[in-house]
Amino acid sequence: MTLELDNFEVQYKDLLGRIGELKTKSGVIETPHMFPVINPLIQPIAPEVIKKEFKINAVMVNAYLLKKNFGSEAVSRGVHKFINFDGIISTDSGAYQALIYGEIKASPEEMVEFQEAIKTDVAIILDVPTGYDENREKAEWTVKETLRRADLSLKIIKEKNILWIGPIQGGIHLDLVSLCAKEMSKKPFSIYALGSPTKIMEHYLFDKLIEMIMTAKMNLPLNKPLHLFGAGHPMIFALAVACGCDIFDSAAYAIFARKGKYLTESGTLDVNELEYFPCSCKACSNYNPKEFKLLSKNEQEKILAEHNLWICQEEIKRIKQAILNGRLWEFLEIKARAHPSVMEAFRKISKYKIFLEKHSPSIKRKGLFYFGDEGLSRPEIIRYKLRLEKNYIKPRKWSILVLFPTPKEKPFYRNWIVTKILKENYKAHICFYLTPFGLIPIELSDVYPISQMEVALPLGKEAIENSISEVEKYISRCNYSRILLILPESEDLEKFKNDCKKICKNKRVKFKSIKIKEILSEGDLKRILKSIKA
Amino acid sequence: MTLELDNFEVQYKDLLGRIGELKTKSGVIETPHMFPVINPLIQPIAPEVIKKEFKINAVMVNAYLLKKNFGSEAVSRGVHKFINFDGIISTDSGAYQALIYGEIKASPEEMVEFQEAIKTDVAIILDVPTGYDENREKAEWTVKETLRRADLSLKIIKEKNILWIGPIQGGIHLDLVSLCAKEMSKKPFSIYALGSPTKIMEHYLFDKLIEMIMTAKMNLPLNKPLHLFGAGHPMIFALAVACGCDIFDSAAYAIFARKGKYLTESGTLDVNELEYFPCSCKACSNYNPKEFKLLSKNEQEKILAEHNLWICQEEIKRIKQAILNGRLWEFLEIKARAHPSVMEAFRKISKYKIFLEKHSPSIKRKGLFYFGDEGLSRPEIIRYKLRLEKNYIKPRKWSILVLFPTPKEKPFYRNWIVTKILKENYKAHICFYLTPFGLIPIELSDVYPISQMEVALPLGKEAIENSISEVEKYISRCNYSRILLILPESEDLEKFKNDCKKICKNKRVKFKSIKIKEILSEGDLKRILKSIKA
Repeated sequence: MTLELDNFEVQYKDLLGRIGELKTKSGVIETPHMFPVINPLIQPIAPEVIKKEFKINAVMVNAYLLKKNFGSEAVSRGVHKFINFDGIISTDSGAYQALIYGEIKASPEEMVEFQEAIKTDVAIILDVPTGYDENREKAEWTVKETLRRADLSLKIIKEKNILWIGPIQGGIHLDLVSLCAKEMSKKPFSIYALGSPTKIMEHYLFDKLIEMIMTAKMNLPLNKPLHLFGAGHPMIFALAVACGCDIFDSAAYAIFARKGKYLTESGTLDVNELEYFPCSCKACSNYNPKEFKLLSKNEQEKILAEHNLWICQEEIKRIKQAILNGRLWEFLEIKARAHPSVMEAFRKISKYKIFLEKHSPSIKRKGLFYFGDEGLSRPEIIRYKLRLEKNYIKPRKWSILVLFPTPKEKPFYRNWIVTKILKENYKAHICFYLTPFGLIPIELSDVYPISQMEVALPLGKEAIENSISEVEKYISRCNYSRILLILPESEDLEKFKNDCKKICKNKRVKFKSIKIKEILSEGDLKRILKSIKA
Repeated sequence: MTLELDNFEVQYKDLLGRIGELKTKSGVIETPHMFPVINPLIQPIAPEVIKKEFKINAVMVNAYLLKKNFGSEAVSRGVHKFINFDGIISTDSGAYQALIYGEIKASPEEMVEFQEAIKTDVAIILDVPTGYDENREKAEWTVKETLRRADLSLKIIKEKNILWIGPIQGGIHLDLVSLCAKEMSKKPFSIYALGSPTKIMEHYLFDKLIEMIMTAKMNLPLNKPLHLFGAGHPMIFALAVACGCDIFDSAAYAIFARKGKYLTESGTLDVNELEYFPCSCKACSNYNPKEFKLLSKNEQEKILAEHNLWICQEEIKRIKQAILNGRLWEFLEIKARAHPSVMEAFRKISKYKIFLEKHSPSIKRKGLFYFGDEGLSRPEIIRYKLRLEKNYIKPRKWSILVLFPTPKEKPFYRNWIVTKILKENYKAHICFYLTPFGLIPIELSDVYPISQMEVALPLGKEAIENSISEVEKYISRCNYSRILLILPESEDLEKFKNDCKKICKNKRVKFKSIKIKEILSEGDLKRILKSIKA
């Protein structure tokens, strides 16, 4: 059978994150989107309030719980009327319940039929979540069984105006995730989804989560949206989006509220420990913690749920604005400091830097910020280095290489010594080093993104080592008759100097080095000019 | 004359930041506090709204502008009635106007008398701001003249129930700031203030600002509050608080609104460029940017000012909660990623790490997070290292030193190999390395803050080098009969191994090293035990 497929359109991108439009029969979802999960049994914020006050137009309901508790009524009224939500509804199929409570009382066929009967907009087949299982054999079975159920379900699907989701299982076994994604992508689903990372997130194994998402993403068609199930805490949304997740569902706003937990964009606080509500949302600006504690338990839970939902929604808006501004990497730098485990997840991204580079946009609205060594993996730097290594050929007119520590002025030729060298020596080719870009030939120094990047100084040790090794590679492959290395006194670069000397000796290139102070004098200029001429 | 002095009480501290109570004749200000600056000529949010809606009980008004425009009326009604603010009012004296527009039409004496006449709660003498002036001679004059005016003013002050502020000038000339702070601290002011850093902040020279604040702070009495004039952008509040600023004033919420600028906790956005309002405040949750653009210019400015003020207020609340949780350092790690210049300011703190350590609390409510090399300067780590070096004496019973790479388990003795060594070898003293703490003897490994710190892995190069150098210092000064160095295969520590060998050779201590893989096997255990016994 064929399903509706052409319903997702990407408008803006940054890293693998994207702002897009996902068309459903009940309206358009702007991605990235978080579906607040509605619990038909206990629900602290009424669905119509979520639409009207929070301006969220798409929610998720668990179809299995609907079926089990309200079966025929839900069918006769349709899910929209039943939960009183005049927007887009996505349904979940009970797989998570199966994971937590063991077998559930519904077959994959029944769940397809039920979701069609209640007229949902986005539906998922009943798969078998791998969960956080170290047992490989069992994990393998969940993948096989999920794929079997996908085929089974696709055969009986009748409603072509529902967007069906194909789930990817495999858990922490990345080869299984890869296999499952490859197989699932052959099947005609409108959306793909990474299955139950809930336990992995509960254990704060965010680095494992990044590996799972990236493995799935790299094996799925990029023109389809990717859903992340149970994405939980807002502090992880940005990372998930950056790795290519377009939609999430989360019940965290309500579950945390029930436990008296107050979400912030970078963590979770116990509401009873709070002396201040560090938030300006409608819920928080009406009460201070002392006043809050005088409210009834029910009221407290409702206000907490509202606050938590505002925070989730705010985070999604920040992510979107960051994508538009081309500042998603910078946003990740901030998010990474929410918790050391988030930091480890952020660092894990470097494992996928080549893929990221390939699919990230090359032009941005705003300048870039470089804060420290993690930034070495960002696409703009990776791209620059790849191009320099593959495509750069030194122009013939220059026979003398002057290696200059990167000045603070931008573009670099504004530095007065650089200006003077340029004026006096047409044969001297100035290349800058001690920069996150590694090595920058002067003629590239005012092109994007070099002069659009603001670098926090001093450089970290990794960036320095990295730059040095780029210089050594460069002098090994390029032919100059003479090399002058200008060394800043502030850094200990003795070993680097000796390595360069050695390379030059082997290549029979004349080599000289000069040490300079941070603030350059006329005397320094004279020494440099003399050394170039000599 | 003597002025009221005992009006500031500190309740909680973190780094040099503190939550305190500053008593005034019109009520108590809880610090850190930001006084929104009220402009009596154009004011987008009515002062009574600031009190009622925003729950801010203390604002600042420019007394010079009041005097110039409404002189006698302001005097006859008093400043509280005149601006209609039923709370605490601080007044500024026109020094900033003098800096911007040259001479002003008021003498220091007149400004003292006027501020007394309008019955302000907190007042400042008319000083001479240094501003951002590179000219040392002129800067020197501003300091001298400010000190002279301080004496002059103190002589004529009559109202003892006003809190008078003594301003510190000197600008970027740190020796002048130091001199001015020392002299001013001899004079009986209730509050001290760092003068006009506005230009320095406008140029994003936040690292210079940190140096100015710290220089003032280190030369002022710690029991008095420190005010930072014109603290501008919320992204810098946390750093200023961490360096000991208790109060600020800022007109940024209104000035930025007039220019169509939308403040966020980490930057400034042009409201016309926004596709989303990444905020949940009352102003932002009522409109989206499209709806906002349809409003009149005046309405837009008012809403923007409201949003900007919510953001400033939210930031202050976040800072307070961070102080209470002992997470101010962690908060700075996030703030530092607002802009590379903020990062440079954050790094500048390491210059003052010894002073910071001395005045930071040693017990905290929550565990600590270590994200990367900047964290090496945090007080808990500095304190631990100082104590280890000065006070630690290795217990006699141990004669063999086993240097073990820090395991992931906490406390470290939970690592199975460590447990086995402990069981079998009572003479082996296990010390952990490759940790931000440098070196950790096993008997200290479960004390605060070692086992309360969550470390993001892998360690940065600086932390590794740092730890290695601590180990070398340690084996140089302690006496063991034998040393076993266990090296993880994942790191290149060849030089470290050779250095240790050399030290041991000189001390005639037996030395052995073993390489191990990340996941330890029974075989590894056997090799280690054999080496300890051998």
